[in-house]
Amino acid sequence: MAIRVVLIGQGLVATHFAVGVERIKKGELEPYGVPFAKYQMVYDIKDIEIVGSYDVDNEKVGKTVYEVAVKAVGDILPVPETLKSITVRRGIHLGSMEGLPFQVKGLEDELGSTKAAIERLVEEWKQLQPDVIIEVATTEPAKAFHDVKALEEAIEKDDRKRLSASHAYAYAAYLYAKETGKPVAFINVIPSPLARDDAIVKLFEEAGSLVLGDDGATGATPLTADLLEHLAERNRYVMSIAQFNIGGNTDFLALTVPERNKMKEETKSSIVKDILGYDAPHFIKPTGYLEPLGDKKFVSMHIWWKTFNALEDELVVNLRINDSPALAGLLVDLTRIGKALVERGEKGTAYPVNAFFMKDPGPRGARNMSRIRAYYQLLDYLREKGVIKA
Amino acid sequence: MAIRVVLIGQGLVATHFAVGVERIKKGELEPYGVPFAKYQMVYDIKDIEIVGSYDVDNEKVGKTVYEVAVKAVGDILPVPETLKSITVRRGIHLGSMEGLPFQVKGLEDELGSTKAAIERLVEEWKQLQPDVIIEVATTEPAKAFHDVKALEEAIEKDDRKRLSASHAYAYAAYLYAKETGKPVAFINVIPSPLARDDAIVKLFEEAGSLVLGDDGATGATPLTADLLEHLAERNRYVMSIAQFNIGGNTDFLALTVPERNKMKEETKSSIVKDILGYDAPHFIKPTGYLEPLGDKKFVSMHIWWKTFNALEDELVVNLRINDSPALAGLLVDLTRIGKALVERGEKGTAYPVNAFFMKDPGPRGARNMSRIRAYYQLLDYLREKGVIKA
Amino acid sequence: MAIRVVLIGQGLVATHFAVGVERIKKGELEPYGVPFAKYQMVYDIKDIEIVGSYDVDNEKVGKTVYEVAVKAVGDILPVPETLKSITVRRGIHLGSMEGLPFQVKGLEDELGSTKAAIERLVEEWKQLQPDVIIEVATTEPAKAFHDVKALEEAIEKDDRKRLSASHAYAYAAYLYAKETGKPVAFINVIPSPLARDDAIVKLFEEAGSLVLGDDGATGATPLTADLLEHLAERNRYVMSIAQFNIGGNTDFLALTVPERNKMKEETKSSIVKDILGYDAPHFIKPTGYLEPLGDKKFVSMHIWWKTFNALEDELVVNLRINDSPALAGLLVDLTRIGKALVERGEKGTAYPVNAFFMKDPGPRGARNMSRIRAYYQLLDYLREKGVIKA
Amino acid sequence: MAIRVVLIGQGLVATHFAVGVERIKKGELEPYGVPFAKYQMVYDIKDIEIVGSYDVDNEKVGKTVYEVAVKAVGDILPVPETLKSITVRRGIHLGSMEGLPFQVKGLEDELGSTKAAIERLVEEWKQLQPDVIIEVATTEPAKAFHDVKALEEAIEKDDRKRLSASHAYAYAAYLYAKETGKPVAFINVIPSPLARDDAIVKLFEEAGSLVLGDDGATGATPLTADLLEHLAERNRYVMSIAQFNIGGNTDFLALTVPERNKMKEETKSSIVKDILGYDAPHFIKPTGYLEPLGDKKFVSMHIWWKTFNALEDELVVNLRINDSPALAGLLVDLTRIGKALVERGEKGTAYPVNAFFMKDPGPRGARNMSRIRAYYQLLDYLREKGVIKA
Repeated sequence: MAIRVVLIGQGLVATHFAVGVERIKKGELEPYGVPFAKYQMVYDIKDIEIVGSYDVDNEKVGKTVYEVAVKAVGDILPVPETLKSITVRRGIHLGSMEGLPFQVKGLEDELGSTKAAIERLVEEWKQLQPDVIIEVATTEPAKAFHDVKALEEAIEKDDRKRLSASHAYAYAAYLYAKETGKPVAFINVIPSPLARDDAIVKLFEEAGSLVLGDDGATGATPLTADLLEHLAERNRYVMSIAQFNIGGNTDFLALTVPERNKMKEETKSSIVKDILGYDAPHFIKPTGYLEPLGDKKFVSMHIWWKTFNALEDELVVNLRINDSPALAGLLVDLTRIGKALVERGEKGTAYPVNAFFMKDPGPRGARNMSRIRAYYQLLDYLREKGVIKA
Repeated sequence: MAIRVVLIGQGLVATHFAVGVERIKKGELEPYGVPFAKYQMVYDIKDIEIVGSYDVDNEKVGKTVYEVAVKAVGDILPVPETLKSITVRRGIHLGSMEGLPFQVKGLEDELGSTKAAIERLVEEWKQLQPDVIIEVATTEPAKAFHDVKALEEAIEKDDRKRLSASHAYAYAAYLYAKETGKPVAFINVIPSPLARDDAIVKLFEEAGSLVLGDDGATGATPLTADLLEHLAERNRYVMSIAQFNIGGNTDFLALTVPERNKMKEETKSSIVKDILGYDAPHFIKPTGYLEPLGDKKFVSMHIWWKTFNALEDELVVNLRINDSPALAGLLVDLTRIGKALVERGEKGTAYPVNAFFMKDPGPRGARNMSRIRAYYQLLDYLREKGVIKA
Repeated sequence: MAIRVVLIGQGLVATHFAVGVERIKKGELEPYGVPFAKYQMVYDIKDIEIVGSYDVDNEKVGKTVYEVAVKAVGDILPVPETLKSITVRRGIHLGSMEGLPFQVKGLEDELGSTKAAIERLVEEWKQLQPDVIIEVATTEPAKAFHDVKALEEAIEKDDRKRLSASHAYAYAAYLYAKETGKPVAFINVIPSPLARDDAIVKLFEEAGSLVLGDDGATGATPLTADLLEHLAERNRYVMSIAQFNIGGNTDFLALTVPERNKMKEETKSSIVKDILGYDAPHFIKPTGYLEPLGDKKFVSMHIWWKTFNALEDELVVNLRINDSPALAGLLVDLTRIGKALVERGEKGTAYPVNAFFMKDPGPRGARNMSRIRAYYQLLDYLREKGVIKA
Repeated sequence: MAIRVVLIGQGLVATHFAVGVERIKKGELEPYGVPFAKYQMVYDIKDIEIVGSYDVDNEKVGKTVYEVAVKAVGDILPVPETLKSITVRRGIHLGSMEGLPFQVKGLEDELGSTKAAIERLVEEWKQLQPDVIIEVATTEPAKAFHDVKALEEAIEKDDRKRLSASHAYAYAAYLYAKETGKPVAFINVIPSPLARDDAIVKLFEEAGSLVLGDDGATGATPLTADLLEHLAERNRYVMSIAQFNIGGNTDFLALTVPERNKMKEETKSSIVKDILGYDAPHFIKPTGYLEPLGDKKFVSMHIWWKTFNALEDELVVNLRINDSPALAGLLVDLTRIGKALVERGEKGTAYPVNAFFMKDPGPRGARNMSRIRAYYQLLDYLREKGVIKA
């Protein structure tokens, strides 16, 4: 049975997801980078069917996903023709791309209000019938509401300062699920707090649906988490942690805008205390934008600790990693797991899923743990729920 | 209640162990590098009492552990005066230091036969009354017997080619436990196969005792294990692994002798297939000896994999780590756990302990797993056995 | 014959300089880190005599250099008693430490005007009789004047916004040289433009004196210069350069204040175009402050280029380097060279000296070159001038 | 005017050379990796014409260079059709590939003696009329003769133990030049001592020809040379140097045979003392073979030194570099320089050329120097000789 997927933000991650899924379906690509590919899950990767795509970039809206993909990754990947059938639709902006060098327009600008834009989305989704909606737009400034009324008021009053695009999308997903009676899995892999927003979680619970998030855990952060766990298990005393990140994709460009950088920084820092048990001095930040690096970022990390007899050891890690494919690989499993879990009646959010896949796992106040621990806990959970076959 | 400990091989590891334990007992050192220090164990670090020490180096035999420590680490650590009370005794050699630039003599040379040397050890241990015997001599060429009769014949015939010093020590420990009725924990942190030797495990079982081993997991190997687990959990396809090690301590000097190097190499390689599930091409070897590096070795590692959409990522890890203190820190817990387990009736060997602490965990044929998994499994095991308090 | 030296800014660099020079004089330290120590120069390191020290930090003013040194480096170095004879005097502030967590007061605050403060300095120097004055205070915001009249007006009008402390010190040095007829070498190793300020160079020329600067070339910048030269000589096409710096000393703390960071950034970037011949995309910035790293900073660098057949190569460099001693070592030679050159009639500034020792070599508009080239050109120059004996 | 080139050893380096030169001639490739491409030389890259190729691998002999290139680099580079006109001829083996997994046969086996093989080569070359012969076969065990008579006797007696293939080729080149009166430039970029062999140099002098060598300086060695120069110029005291190399090309495979490894090791070590002035403890060796790395090797280097005040700094360098193109790029200039110099009457060998381009510069006993110094000395030399236009 198919899993119908709508993508929000047809950037590099969504493009890698679309290209990779279609290539796997054609049998020309191994599912490397898909964490649970080696287990038998109730949904196969081949069940994934992309049915819709949204963006606010005028260069993309109206083009097919095929056209967008050829432009973005056509020099390094074969782009399957099947992507010609999906056309990028105009989505909600709400200032999420402000300050970046793109020509953008939001549905709310076209239709006059955010509320009207949300209603339009619900209408369209009633036709597209998504099981899973993936929020993978560019990092935006956003704040949790925690209070349903406050959220609904912001929509009603069209308070564009307070409201983020991701909140609007999530609210549309809630309305869609409630009005159709068809539960939906909303997967948020950007830093905006949705699975950590009490209001969003409550609404999804009410609609028998699931919000998974926030901020997909790829790149240096999960590796740092596992390295810290490694040190903590040996009771080595970490004196300081420095981590630099530099890349040339839109996400790094976005982070040159200070308030977006702040969104990332908080996420990345929380792992230190959660895993070590003390707040070792650290500098963990996306550091800069360097265009020629493209999507393959450079990461450098320095960790320094006291070992037995208080002598000092040092670790330096250098990475060259493809940013977007790593997240796209996670989306393949999040899609399958999201669909399977809502079918099995899970609602609100699902911490065991978030703890492995997300940098800032919801619900609000949930702790980070090392990824290796989270992996085995998730495996147990998925077996128990019948999502992975024994 | 005290844990009486005998050290075999008064090299840098044993010296760091002795110095560190005494400093912790004096309250002048935090137990950094002792994995389970933050849990409440039935034995405290302060219960550890070193009662004997053995070596074959003429420069050390007859000296106090204090004198040996001042010479070895006096420039970087304060050496506690309490170590003046332990004098290094002559131990068994059996060629274990052959080819290295030290003046050595074994007890078997003094007394005329290996059997006589073993008997002398048993006699001495009846007076010293150790609960725990730690084998931490220099890496030696050694082969498992697997057959008790074959082992006993080699001792009887004084077959010095076939017999390794560690086998002789383990056999002495067995005799000591059997003759006194007092169970002993024999902890083997060198590569010689003891916990992987069916014969040794069988003898210890018979004597209600425990052999833990083999080859203490410090340095780059457990870190590699956890990095590979990290990649495996994301289904990244590892294309190759290169790992270099260079240092200036006796262990690295020993590895310039080819057959000793081989002892290490096998251990280090087995983790790849055990954790990844396939034998990714790898070069994992202690690489060289460079005297000025001393005990603080330099490690460099390159790992390379395919991520989603078959794109390629790269990881480089560089380490400067103190070799001996890391192992000494593990010995603190192995001592406490060994003592507590024999008291609780455990005998033969204990895989959950070996799986975390050892590079080549016994019994024979046991698999390696990532250290992070092994850690949590060990924690459960120790709680279940009542070694760690809930 | 002695070289009488006055230090401005009794921070870590000046302290390492003072401690190191005295230790070398006592014969307890090899002159490692002093570039020309292996050549026979007309002045020996033992000729250096520190006769005065200035600072604006209330914690330092009035203390001896010995007391300051014991507090700053007493845990890692023996501090010579001879430093008890020099007391730190109050210097000019002019906002140079603004925004940093220190209690400071400037001479201009005590005496009511910058002009009065300058006069006081000249007076004191007439007694101290320095041959060499070293400006090594914390990085401050500063701008060149290029016009003598504008500079003198700023002093006259006490324009504290426009005037930097280093300009005031340099002007005082000029007055001192002019009024006494005794030429002075003013060595500026902070980023403030003095040797690049036409006004300052002109004044020093007039006074038969020498200003050397700006911004002492230590750490990652000269190494980057030589790596780029290495690539340029092989006609490798550099695609991008990323360089991160993080440390825990006052200099890094100062750089958390944005305008100070900008002072550094410009300096560091200019090497790319000057050496490669094209402006390869780069991100070269002091990146962050991490207190536990102290004076031993961590640097990470990624360089990426096209080789023959347009294939791509990559280089990653990681450094752990002591920031202050590296600069202190250069000061030893700058002091000796400065003194010898003014005696030989050199005046204004001396590009061959600046090109090797400085990140932003004066005079205004002078180019950077790789350090290895600069070294051999300087060697020729010093031989020609008779500063180094053939 | 054309430069007629014969290649000995149609491996990866010769293939990159052939492909790259043809691509540059077609105008589809920038001359990145060709050191002096930005200067105006008397011969242009477009003047290079490959007229012959030799190998002993049965898989290659009789194939065109085009076919060999498609197989070797066809997946990563476009292979120009022009290479179809050159067919690989059978060359001399003399055991140079012994122990490696290739099916090989030498001309000396076909013709019955080494002397006959040499004569055949001379005959063929009289038709091909090369100006430049490039020796770029796999690293072989070889020893210098230093005495012409001894060399000629070895050829006469067909002493295949003593004689290396490269000596036989060089002797053939000498005969060719002598008999035709047409001077030749023989360029040896493998470790075999030719430019360091008094006998070879003497013969070339006699024939008005030039031998340049030995062992092309690419990869980590010239970089290490420049890093050591950087440290030496600051009088930093190097405590130790560790350098690892691992790759998957034939050269690394060859080095798994111990005596070949030794050939490399000596070369690499000599730079330390030559540049630093003292023999800092070092471990500099090609370390291992790891097939998936292919031609893009991984290099890791650790250097450690004392700075001012005897504090310790550390440098780690990690490289991923394409081995063969780097050397091919140097060959482009060596070819042009070799041809221009013999025309200008240079004979024997030319140290200024060797000092920059070679790891073990001839003549016998010549010193290594940092590459950056050697570069500028070579530039001066080439200008003086009129090879580079002012």
